Amino acid sequence: MKKILVIHGPNLNLLGKREPDIYGKFTLEQINELIKKEAAQLKLEVKIIHSNHEGEIVDTIGNASSEFEAIVINPAAYTHTSVAIRDAVSACGLPTVEVHLSNIYSREEFRKTSLISGVASGQIAGFGIQSYILGIKAASYLINK
Amino acid sequence: MKKILVIHGPNLNLLGKREPDIYGKFTLEQINELIKKEAAQLKLEVKIIHSNHEGEIVDTIGNASSEFEAIVINPAAYTHTSVAIRDAVSACGLPTVEVHLSNIYSREEFRKTSLISGVASGQIAGFGIQSYILGIKAASYLINK
Amino acid sequence: MKKILVIHGPNLNLLGKREPDIYGKFTLEQINELIKKEAAQLKLEVKIIHSNHEGEIVDTIGNASSEFEAIVINPAAYTHTSVAIRDAVSACGLPTVEVHLSNIYSREEFRKTSLISGVASGQIAGFGIQSYILGIKAASYLINK
Amino acid sequence: MKKILVIHGPNLNLLGKREPDIYGKFTLEQINELIKKEAAQLKLEVKIIHSNHEGEIVDTIGNASSEFEAIVINPAAYTHTSVAIRDAVSACGLPTVEVHLSNIYSREEFRKTSLISGVASGQIAGFGIQSYILGIKAASYLINK
Amino acid sequence: MKKILVIHGPNLNLLGKREPDIYGKFTLEQINELIKKEAAQLKLEVKIIHSNHEGEIVDTIGNASSEFEAIVINPAAYTHTSVAIRDAVSACGLPTVEVHLSNIYSREEFRKTSLISGVASGQIAGFGIQSYILGIKAASYLINK
Amino acid sequence: MKKILVIHGPNLNLLGKREPDIYGKFTLEQINELIKKEAAQLKLEVKIIHSNHEGEIVDTIGNASSEFEAIVINPAAYTHTSVAIRDAVSACGLPTVEVHLSNIYSREEFRKTSLISGVASGQIAGFGIQSYILGIKAASYLINK
Amino acid sequence: MKKILVIHGPNLNLLGKREPDIYGKFTLEQINELIKKEAAQLKLEVKIIHSNHEGEIVDTIGNASSEFEAIVINPAAYTHTSVAIRDAVSACGLPTVEVHLSNIYSREEFRKTSLISGVASGQIAGFGIQSYILGIKAASYLINK
Amino acid sequence: MKKILVIHGPNLNLLGKREPDIYGKFTLEQINELIKKEAAQLKLEVKIIHSNHEGEIVDTIGNASSEFEAIVINPAAYTHTSVAIRDAVSACGLPTVEVHLSNIYSREEFRKTSLISGVASGQIAGFGIQSYILGIKAASYLINK
Amino acid sequence: MKKILVIHGPNLNLLGKREPDIYGKFTLEQINELIKKEAAQLKLEVKIIHSNHEGEIVDTIGNASSEFEAIVINPAAYTHTSVAIRDAVSACGLPTVEVHLSNIYSREEFRKTSLISGVASGQIAGFGIQSYILGIKAASYLINK
Amino acid sequence: MKKILVIHGPNLNLLGKREPDIYGKFTLEQINELIKKEAAQLKLEVKIIHSNHEGEIVDTIGNASSEFEAIVINPAAYTHTSVAIRDAVSACGLPTVEVHLSNIYSREEFRKTSLISGVASGQIAGFGIQSYILGIKAASYLINK
Amino acid sequence: MKKILVIHGPNLNLLGKREPDIYGKFTLEQINELIKKEAAQLKLEVKIIHSNHEGEIVDTIGNASSEFEAIVINPAAYTHTSVAIRDAVSACGLPTVEVHLSNIYSREEFRKTSLISGVASGQIAGFGIQSYILGIKAASYLINK
Amino acid sequence: MKKILVIHGPNLNLLGKREPDIYGKFTLEQINELIKKEAAQLKLEVKIIHSNHEGEIVDTIGNASSEFEAIVINPAAYTHTSVAIRDAVSACGLPTVEVHLSNIYSREEFRKTSLISGVASGQIAGFGIQSYILGIKAASYLINK
Repeated sequence: MKKILVIHGPNLNLLGKREPDIYGKFTLEQINELIKKEAAQLKLEVKIIHSNHEGEIVDTIGNASSEFEAIVINPAAYTHTSVAIRDAVSACGLPTVEVHLSNIYSREEFRKTSLISGVASGQIAGFGIQSYILGIKAASYLINK
Repeated sequence: MKKILVIHGPNLNLLGKREPDIYGKFTLEQINELIKKEAAQLKLEVKIIHSNHEGEIVDTIGNASSEFEAIVINPAAYTHTSVAIRDAVSACGLPTVEVHLSNIYSREEFRKTSLISGVASGQIAGFGIQSYILGIKAASYLINK
Repeated sequence: MKKILVIHGPNLNLLGKREPDIYGKFTLEQINELIKKEAAQLKLEVKIIHSNHEGEIVDTIGNASSEFEAIVINPAAYTHTSVAIRDAVSACGLPTVEVHLSNIYSREEFRKTSLISGVASGQIAGFGIQSYILGIKAASYLINK
Repeated sequence: MKKILVIHGPNLNLLGKREPDIYGKFTLEQINELIKKEAAQLKLEVKIIHSNHEGEIVDTIGNASSEFEAIVINPAAYTHTSVAIRDAVSACGLPTVEVHLSNIYSREEFRKTSLISGVASGQIAGFGIQSYILGIKAASYLINK
Repeated sequence: MKKILVIHGPNLNLLGKREPDIYGKFTLEQINELIKKEAAQLKLEVKIIHSNHEGEIVDTIGNASSEFEAIVINPAAYTHTSVAIRDAVSACGLPTVEVHLSNIYSREEFRKTSLISGVASGQIAGFGIQSYILGIKAASYLINK
Repeated sequence: MKKILVIHGPNLNLLGKREPDIYGKFTLEQINELIKKEAAQLKLEVKIIHSNHEGEIVDTIGNASSEFEAIVINPAAYTHTSVAIRDAVSACGLPTVEVHLSNIYSREEFRKTSLISGVASGQIAGFGIQSYILGIKAASYLINK
Repeated sequence: MKKILVIHGPNLNLLGKREPDIYGKFTLEQINELIKKEAAQLKLEVKIIHSNHEGEIVDTIGNASSEFEAIVINPAAYTHTSVAIRDAVSACGLPTVEVHLSNIYSREEFRKTSLISGVASGQIAGFGIQSYILGIKAASYLINK
Repeated sequence: MKKILVIHGPNLNLLGKREPDIYGKFTLEQINELIKKEAAQLKLEVKIIHSNHEGEIVDTIGNASSEFEAIVINPAAYTHTSVAIRDAVSACGLPTVEVHLSNIYSREEFRKTSLISGVASGQIAGFGIQSYILGIKAASYLINK
Repeated sequence: MKKILVIHGPNLNLLGKREPDIYGKFTLEQINELIKKEAAQLKLEVKIIHSNHEGEIVDTIGNASSEFEAIVINPAAYTHTSVAIRDAVSACGLPTVEVHLSNIYSREEFRKTSLISGVASGQIAGFGIQSYILGIKAASYLINK
Repeated sequence: MKKILVIHGPNLNLLGKREPDIYGKFTLEQINELIKKEAAQLKLEVKIIHSNHEGEIVDTIGNASSEFEAIVINPAAYTHTSVAIRDAVSACGLPTVEVHLSNIYSREEFRKTSLISGVASGQIAGFGIQSYILGIKAASYLINK
Repeated sequence: MKKILVIHGPNLNLLGKREPDIYGKFTLEQINELIKKEAAQLKLEVKIIHSNHEGEIVDTIGNASSEFEAIVINPAAYTHTSVAIRDAVSACGLPTVEVHLSNIYSREEFRKTSLISGVASGQIAGFGIQSYILGIKAASYLINK
Repeated sequence: MKKILVIHGPNLNLLGKREPDIYGKFTLEQINELIKKEAAQLKLEVKIIHSNHEGEIVDTIGNASSEFEAIVINPAAYTHTSVAIRDAVSACGLPTVEVHLSNIYSREEFRKTSLISGVASGQIAGFGIQSYILGIKAASYLINK
């Protein structure tokens, strides 16, 4: 069974507890359940990690290629500031799907630039937790292409 | 049965015939077959239009709300230049999914700005013809939310 | 009796039906009635056209000088993107009044630049449907100057 | 009888005396006569002030709300540099019409930005002294809305 | 006999009738006669179209590759705003010569950027109607290269 | 007893009367009472002036060094436009505390630049009338340093 | 007794040891003593942390709302680069005071932009270690408001 | 005997008293003596005014043309912010020499832009009080040209 | 017989020897032969110079008007950096054709700006050595106009 | 024997394993061997660390001055985003050599800005692993200066 | 007798012969006569050079300090493009007066930036040939200061 | 024995004589001695040239490939302004090392952009005369690679 890696970036551990009008009422645990269910339906094994640390995310991606076939990543705030994660995605060589809960293009000016999208296979943004579900589907397509 | 509108923007009629290394080897007709099949599976009726004319796309969106529940649009070149399509999307009030075949963020500088994304529900870009399939799924979610 | 041309740009056909809090509750037909009444009071014949098509608006302006004495135009979305309409206004040689329902200067950044205003005789913006009425008056002044 | 305030900004006292090819041959006194006549026709009392002093204009607007129903202001050079007048307009809460004799959008680059228009009800520019007449009419509409 | 396509963009139908000091005193019909004569001398068949509609120009270019060997286009105002025409030129795969009557680099700031030139084979600008004649010659070279 | 100068910039005379949701419900008189009370507790004599006139504020600061030990200034709108006040602060040589009622960094773009902060000793912004109280304390520290 | 959290950002552990002419001669330990004394006088319990790790600061703020009433943060270098800390401050919902030892507006260009200030309650900058003392006072006001 | 007007802008009253290393050790009174002596040698009558008020400077220039043959102005801080003084200089029609004590081009970024220089006859900057002396000579030349 | 001047700018002496994939396989000598042949056919005498020295090119253009009727110049690298050559072209008063071998608009960003084109009669770019041939033809037209 | 610190920034642990055409075929271990050999020849003791964590690099530099005489750092992705590492380098007071394997000036736009170079003693970029060897030599010079 | 160096930059050899409406009707020789006369009156020996070559001007300035007491330079086109002349002026250590015939601030955008003015003692611009005369006087002041 | 070319750009002839605090106390002759000694140790023959003339440097590089194996160049002021030298370096095809005495990234804004670095093999900056020594070593590596 093929394996994919799902990465939640900074502050996503707070989901469901705060600002539910923006980020929805689901907790990260509930989202993870949905991700696992979707992956199972697509015959994929999934490992999910969350980290607020840029370096930890870089470590994880750097080690990913020996274990995983694809990455689904919501880089959250690091979308806009991390060249290190960009370089890690580029170096690891895995098909990578960038997902965002909210439509980052209708928010603050600085959220309109993604350092990751230039090296990701593609992006999915604005569909709330469905962004993850669509992202898992997209990863599945990319693996089987 | 609910109905969605799929809009192909300028030059997409040339798909499969030219520059297959960039845009893939599928023709627009073949893509439309896949779109219809996916829509059928999701119990959605689908109407597909293609136009190279900004005004025609604006006309179509302006009339869409009485007949459709959601729009899936690949605005192609108009993504970067059409405030009129943006205003039409915003005015029509339907959930709208913006899709792109290629990863517009890893191409020319002027392709990195989307006038549409600020008013779309969400975007899906970079997965080739799967961007449309994921877009239909996303539209289905948005209708049923 | 002198004749003026009133041009409604893209999406204005949707007036009164959608987003009434922004654009008011009057339909384009009702606005046209008011325009005709005002023109009649000023002893002006008026022809009103609406188009979502940039090319059609360019065609219309290109042919206007043989029939009309002045133009009142709400270029709507094309205000910000159409060099073609700018060139048509400049080439036709008629006094031209640019009108906007809303105050375009208190909205999104990209709406603050008008490609038309550099060649229009003057602009009137922000007074809702009264922008058109004031625009007709202004056209009348310009003709009689 | 309702009362409106008309404010002439810096250097407008020189009208008619200098650069008549740009600003016309009417003096400020003659313009004021036309303004009063127009106001009278619209059953409005009008008070007209001129000042070259930003602070004086701010003082005047700050005190306007207890006596006037609307403001018609030609901020002239302060259009482009005065946040203080912008804040005064915003704070006074009166409907405010920004007028300009010339088409500020077809002149120097720095004249294309108005700090006032973002808080004004609307703008009228480019019609010479008729900008004031249209401005009085617009103020009348705003009061009676 | 090889065939080339000549495309006149928006407002060029007004040539010779208006602003002769800028665009010269020749009408589009007269220019077309000169173009045909030059083409004949170079043993080329020529089809000439004019359109004010961006979509129509895109349609025409999209269909050009089965009938023509090269394109000579004066995109006029669309030079500066149309990504759709750029994409059509790029997709059609024909050698394409961009021509301009006037020297676009000595006019308004926004005319200094051409979206077309990045995908055209070359540009010729500033020689009045001779820009077209030189353009036909250039197309002839490109075909025979 | 040491003496400090408190300067209120343009439109602050309108405090408490207008837009209380933004600027609070206290009037300038009430704020002045609190300022005096705080100064008294810190054994400081305080002189408070308000002016809507940039020149008057420049005059005042230019004469301040012979009478005062420090300045607390809310330059309001002049924060963003007055090089003259900046130069006066720099020339007078007194420790100067810049205060703002609101968080100027979460408002309009043009409010994010302060011409004064580069020459002030320090800034305090966003705490409503407490910005003044903290500012008096800061001035006290600066005097006694 | 209410509890506040004080966060020292990167490199502040080096205070007093290096570059004393810029950052003063006090060590972080001495500053912490002064902070605790001030907090005690205001009847506040205080927890102080220092970290050079962006992720650790995000972790800390993410967990702060269950234990603390307010945050005083000197984000140091992360002021200018961390969207993650910005998002954490915004998500945690606590009143947050941004403090800086030096006047960041009179230093290098890149130090003039704070990503934090847009979501902080207010800022205090330029008063050396007194910035912290004023920050504690400000936090006390915000808690009791 | 011909008469010229010398205008000292904001903060120049502080000359000689403060920051002598930047602006020199001469007071404004001493500079005025030198200006008068130079004017006398050139057979010119001279009137000298100083004001910290933008409006007052605009008033003065607006009234200058009936009494004076030329203006020598050191706009100081208003150099960079006053469109009103620019417009006054332009409207008054007198030859105008812009002078600066210091080399404004080797100071802060915002001091490198002069709103006045575009309408002045010429500029002289960087020679300390000799800038005034050279300015008087230049005015003399301009009058006699 | 009328005489034209052809100027080759910096590094064009290396043509044909290096980077033939970019600049073609013809040497400068071979290009000069083609230029002379074309000139002869058009009954023009031609003088050709090459220089890597900006000053030499300026010298040459400065002396050109007494001997030549038109200039054809490939300013190469100096296209983007030489105001001196621009001024020389403008001062010499001769019709001047700017030519480029490659399409400068599809290369590095800094090659997209031409300081020369604003004062040239017209430009021809992107046709390899045919750019020169077309340039000679254009010069011939300009002389005979 | 004097001691220097060599720091490898994010993703450099992947060297030799991935993208060998860009970064070369040497692993980090092999590079470290070469570094040690070079250091030994120069009579320097060397400590080498690698970290993907910005905070860890800041910690390390903050503690470096008591043990080391100089730093050689390849900040990799943090070159372009880390003010914290910049501040650490500046605060530690050690001579610091910035090295890069690739020529960062011929890659993506965002790689052309180094936040570190402003505080480093010097930079060496573009020589592959020889950048490190030259960097060790440079550090040796800086220590012995 | 003290000696000064006067440098005329590119294209100034064409003065009086071309574009007299912009640059005046005096030839360079006539200007040089006036310069010598003025220098003689001020008891200064003067050497005048003209060059169209940046390198020659750099050579001349580099050798100037052993022979001259001051430089008067009209860098003409090199004003806006030559860092080399800037560095030469800075390195030579002589007081240097930058002069311009025309008001460079009321011409093309690229002429508004002077690379020289940041290192010159002062600038004089806009007074035609009197700019040189005033420049000689200024140099005399600077030598005797 | 292999041969390398060392090029000193404008004003470097003044080294050691002026501004020794910035550029060091060594003369160009002394630096050349050190360069020759280093080259000898590396078994390289070296030719050293200095020129203040951009064209001469372009000439030299254009002829270099037949005689030399590598170039070490300190383009000095031309680093920031010469596309011609960039093109020469690119055309000559030799490995080229760009060196700078000072750290160009910690100086004026305009010195932070190098037109040369995009085509050089690598850069070495900030180590004073050791930049040259390291540059010779780097050239040696590049030749032997």
